[in-house]
Amino acid sequence: MSGSAQTTRRSFFGLAGGVALLCTIGGEEIDVSAPGGLERADAAAARINKPRARAAQGLPQLQPQPGGIRREYWVQAEPARWAITPRGQDEWHGRATGGRNVFTAFVYRGMTPGFAGHLVDHPTIPGPLLQAEVGDVLVVHFRNADTKQGVTMHPHGVKYNPEYDGAYMGEFTRDGGFVAPGESFTYQWECTPDSVGAWPYHDHGPNHTLNSFRGLFGAIVVRPKGEKKPDRVFNLFAHQLSPPVTRLERNFHCFNGRAYAGNTPTLRARPGEDVELNVFGQDNNFHTFHIHGHRWKDAAGAFTDNPGFGANECVRARFVEDNPGRWLYHCHVFSHQDVGMAGWYLVE
Amino acid sequence: MSGSAQTTRRSFFGLAGGVALLCTIGGEEIDVSAPGGLERADAAAARINKPRARAAQGLPQLQPQPGGIRREYWVQAEPARWAITPRGQDEWHGRATGGRNVFTAFVYRGMTPGFAGHLVDHPTIPGPLLQAEVGDVLVVHFRNADTKQGVTMHPHGVKYNPEYDGAYMGEFTRDGGFVAPGESFTYQWECTPDSVGAWPYHDHGPNHTLNSFRGLFGAIVVRPKGEKKPDRVFNLFAHQLSPPVTRLERNFHCFNGRAYAGNTPTLRARPGEDVELNVFGQDNNFHTFHIHGHRWKDAAGAFTDNPGFGANECVRARFVEDNPGRWLYHCHVFSHQDVGMAGWYLVE
Amino acid sequence: MSGSAQTTRRSFFGLAGGVALLCTIGGEEIDVSAPGGLERADAAAARINKPRARAAQGLPQLQPQPGGIRREYWVQAEPARWAITPRGQDEWHGRATGGRNVFTAFVYRGMTPGFAGHLVDHPTIPGPLLQAEVGDVLVVHFRNADTKQGVTMHPHGVKYNPEYDGAYMGEFTRDGGFVAPGESFTYQWECTPDSVGAWPYHDHGPNHTLNSFRGLFGAIVVRPKGEKKPDRVFNLFAHQLSPPVTRLERNFHCFNGRAYAGNTPTLRARPGEDVELNVFGQDNNFHTFHIHGHRWKDAAGAFTDNPGFGANECVRARFVEDNPGRWLYHCHVFSHQDVGMAGWYLVE
Repeated sequence: MSGSAQTTRRSFFGLAGGVALLCTIGGEEIDVSAPGGLERADAAAARINKPRARAAQGLPQLQPQPGGIRREYWVQAEPARWAITPRGQDEWHGRATGGRNVFTAFVYRGMTPGFAGHLVDHPTIPGPLLQAEVGDVLVVHFRNADTKQGVTMHPHGVKYNPEYDGAYMGEFTRDGGFVAPGESFTYQWECTPDSVGAWPYHDHGPNHTLNSFRGLFGAIVVRPKGEKKPDRVFNLFAHQLSPPVTRLERNFHCFNGRAYAGNTPTLRARPGEDVELNVFGQDNNFHTFHIHGHRWKDAAGAFTDNPGFGANECVRARFVEDNPGRWLYHCHVFSHQDVGMAGWYLVE
Repeated sequence: MSGSAQTTRRSFFGLAGGVALLCTIGGEEIDVSAPGGLERADAAAARINKPRARAAQGLPQLQPQPGGIRREYWVQAEPARWAITPRGQDEWHGRATGGRNVFTAFVYRGMTPGFAGHLVDHPTIPGPLLQAEVGDVLVVHFRNADTKQGVTMHPHGVKYNPEYDGAYMGEFTRDGGFVAPGESFTYQWECTPDSVGAWPYHDHGPNHTLNSFRGLFGAIVVRPKGEKKPDRVFNLFAHQLSPPVTRLERNFHCFNGRAYAGNTPTLRARPGEDVELNVFGQDNNFHTFHIHGHRWKDAAGAFTDNPGFGANECVRARFVEDNPGRWLYHCHVFSHQDVGMAGWYLVE
Repeated sequence: MSGSAQTTRRSFFGLAGGVALLCTIGGEEIDVSAPGGLERADAAAARINKPRARAAQGLPQLQPQPGGIRREYWVQAEPARWAITPRGQDEWHGRATGGRNVFTAFVYRGMTPGFAGHLVDHPTIPGPLLQAEVGDVLVVHFRNADTKQGVTMHPHGVKYNPEYDGAYMGEFTRDGGFVAPGESFTYQWECTPDSVGAWPYHDHGPNHTLNSFRGLFGAIVVRPKGEKKPDRVFNLFAHQLSPPVTRLERNFHCFNGRAYAGNTPTLRARPGEDVELNVFGQDNNFHTFHIHGHRWKDAAGAFTDNPGFGANECVRARFVEDNPGRWLYHCHVFSHQDVGMAGWYLVE
C-alpha cells in the first residue's frame, strides 16, 4: 500500500473490514483508527481497575491424568520495538520495502523459571509455542511487565475452569481475566482428548483487540499421548499490521509479524521429512493458505493446497516432503499476497 | 461504531462488504445506503405486480413417506418495532449502549391454525423454528400481512418442487415466488434423507436482500427418523443491522437481532446435558463462532472451538456439557465481537 | 452498482477488499485503482526483462506411470474483447444491464497442435479445461501471444518440478516462470494420487494479480484411474470485474466472466444424470455457492446446499439429478447475488 494519506485512510478500512477500528474498552468505545486513537485506547485501558476476584475458595489445583505431567511455562507480556521488514527488501519481487518499518509491539516473551530472564535473546511474534500431550496439564506462569494496562492469556482448544479462562468480563471477571501491570498469574489448562490439535492463545483483557493486533498471540499444540512429533513443525499466523496500530504510513499483510518474502519466516525441510504446518488467522480478514509444489489431505479426506480460514481458526497441512526446490507460500487473497503475505519454503 | 456522520458513512461499506448496498428490485437498481434509499427500495418493491401463476394444472399435494407425517406451521410476515439493545447495556464491558435502539423490522411470526392469532405474544428474530424428521412433509401456511410488497419463504436443505421454491424470478416466477400483501400461500417441503441438518429459511421475493437484512429469516432443523433430540438446541443467526437498514446512527453486529451481551440470547444449560448449537450467517460478512470453555468434533472429525462460516451457511456444535461457569460466546472477527456480536452461555 | 463517480470509487474498495488495488510488479508498486493505474501496471510489467534461466542441465522430461499417458494441450495467452453482459438483460429480475459492457480481457485460448489455430471460434473465460487421470502427465504447450508482458501458467493440485511451477520469483525465477511475448514454453505436470480433485490454474507472472483479475485462469480436473466421468461437469469461477480492471463505470460480480442470469452460464441437465459442479474463487472475496432445489454431501459427509470458499479454493457438488425445473444458482453473499453473481440451472 502506498504511503499516500489517501491510501493510509483506506488502510483503516482494510484493518477493520470496511469500518473504523472500534474497540470497546471498559466504559468507553474508541475508534483506534482516528488520530490519537491508539493513545486514547491505551489510556482508557489504563483507567480500568482490576475487578474484585471471585474465587473466594481459592484457585483449583489441577492434576494431570495418569501418565500425564504438568508442563510448566513462564511467559511475560512486554512492549518491544519490532521491525516488520528487517531485511528492507521483498525477495520475491526484488523490491525495497521502504526501510525496516519499526513500531512498538506487545509480545509474549518466553522466560526462564521464576521470570529470572528471557529464554531467547530477542522478542518473537508469535509468543513461545506451548506443547503438551493428552492427559497433561499446561501450567503457564504469566507476568504482565510494563504494558501499563491489564492483559491476560486466553487459550483455545484446552479445557479450563472459569478462573483460567483469561477473559475480562467486566463485573463478571474471574481471577485470571485481568492481570494488572507488574502482577503475575498462573493458568492451569487441561489437555483433554478433544484438545488434540493446534490452537491460538491471545490477550483477552479489556483492550484485547488492539493488543492482539499488535502482537499478543501465540500457538498451543496438543498431541495424542506418545505420538511421534513431525520432523518439522511450522506455526504461521496470518495477520495485518495497519497504520492505526503501527502509526506507520503503510499497511502490511504479515506472517508472524513480518511482511514480504525474506522477512517472513523462511521455512526449511529436507526430502523424506514429515512436515506439519499450522496456519492461524489473527486479524479481521479471511485468508487461504497456499504452498507451491505441495498438496495434502484435509481433515475431511479431500486433497487441498489452499484451504480457507478466518480469525483464530487454524488450518493444518501435513505431508512427507518429496519435492526439492525453492517454493513460495502465500495467502491466495490477491490483495494480501501482493502486500506482504508471502514467504519462502526451501527444500534441499 | 460511533455516531459520527463519517463513521455512519463507513458503516455502509461495512454493510455491503466494501460497496454501496445495491439492490436489484424488479426493473430498478437502488442504492439502499443512499439518503432515502430504504424508502425508494420499498416503493420499487410495492410497484411490482404479481407475476402470472405458472402451475396451470394446480399445485402438487405431497404425501409423507411411510411412517412420516405432515407437520403444519402457520407463519405470517409482518412489520414490527424491534429493539436491538432492549437492556440498554453491554454486560460484557459494563457500558451503556445508547438506549434501546429501536427500528422497524420485518419478522416471520408464528401463528395459530387459520392465522387466528399469534403463537407468542412478542415478535421474534429469527422466526419460528420449523422441525421435522426424514420422511415428513413440512406444510407451511404462509401469509403476507402488511408488508406492502410481495414476500416469500425460501427454504434451504429440504426438497421442493419449483412451485414451493419461494423465489421471485421475474417472468419465470412460480406460484410460491410472490405472495402479495394480504394473500397467503401454503408451501410443501419434503424432508429427504439428505435434508438432515440445520438450515435457514428467508425471504426470496423481489426485495429479498433488504428484507432478509431487516429480519425475515428463520431456522429449519431436520433429524433422522426417531432420533432423540438434544436436551438443549440453540439457533443463532450472526448478522448485521446497519444504518441503511435501520436508519439509526450506529452499526450493530448481532445475534438474533440483538447486539451486546445481555441483549443477545443468554444461553443456559446444565452439566450432563446434550447441547446442540446451530449458527447461521445472515449478512454479507464471514464469521467464526467461538464458545469459551468448550470444544467439539466437526463433521470432518477434527476438534474445533471456532469454525468459520458465510452467508446462509450453518456450522453446528454438539457436546455433552461438562464445564460449569459463565462463558462468553462470540464471533471471533475482532471488528464484529467489539460491536455487539457476543453473548453469555451460562452453565449451572 | 450504480455508475456514479462515488460508487465507482467505492467499487475500488470492493475490488481489493477495502483497500486500493495495489500490485507489486518487479521493482514497482502500483495502485491499479488510481487513474491511469492499469496502463502503468502494464507498462511496469513490460519493462521487466526475462530472468536468466536456471536449469543449466536442461528441463526434466517426465514419464507417465505404468498405464498412464501424456495428455497434451496447446494453450495461448492473448487479449480479447469481452462482453460481461452479452444479452444486455438480467433475466432474473427482468432488468436491462446497460448494454453489453465490453472490455479488453486476457484469456487462455485452446489451440490446435503447433498453435496452428484456435480450437474454438470464440475466446472463453475460463480457459480450456485440462483433464487427466492419476498416473498421467499433463503436457501443456503454452504460448504468450500479444500480451506485451511476461505471463505464465501456474497450476494447483498437480505435482511439478520448480521449472514447471510457472511462478515469477524475481532473481529466483525458473524457466517456466516468465514466458516473454511471442515465446512459448512446455509445462509438464504429474497427476499423483493426491492430485485427485478440481483445481484452478492461473497466471503467476510479474503482473499476476491484474492478469488473473482480467481473465487468465482456468480449471484442471484429475480423476482416479479409469473412473467413469459424470454425465455433466460444470466448472464455475466466482470473481469480480471492477472499474480498475475493466475501465467500465460499473462493478460486476461474475461467474465465468459474465454477470446476471442469462449472461452467466445457463447449466442444463436431465433427471437421472450424474451431475458434478466445481466452483472456484478467483477474486479477493469469499463466497458461498447455492443451487435452488438441490443439496449434496460434502467431503466431510455433511449435507449442504451452500458451502463457503475463498480465492483459488474449489468447492465440489455431486448429485444424481432428481428435481426438474428452472432453478437459480448464485453466490449467497447478498451484495454479490444482486450485482450479477447468479445464473440458471435448467432440468428438463
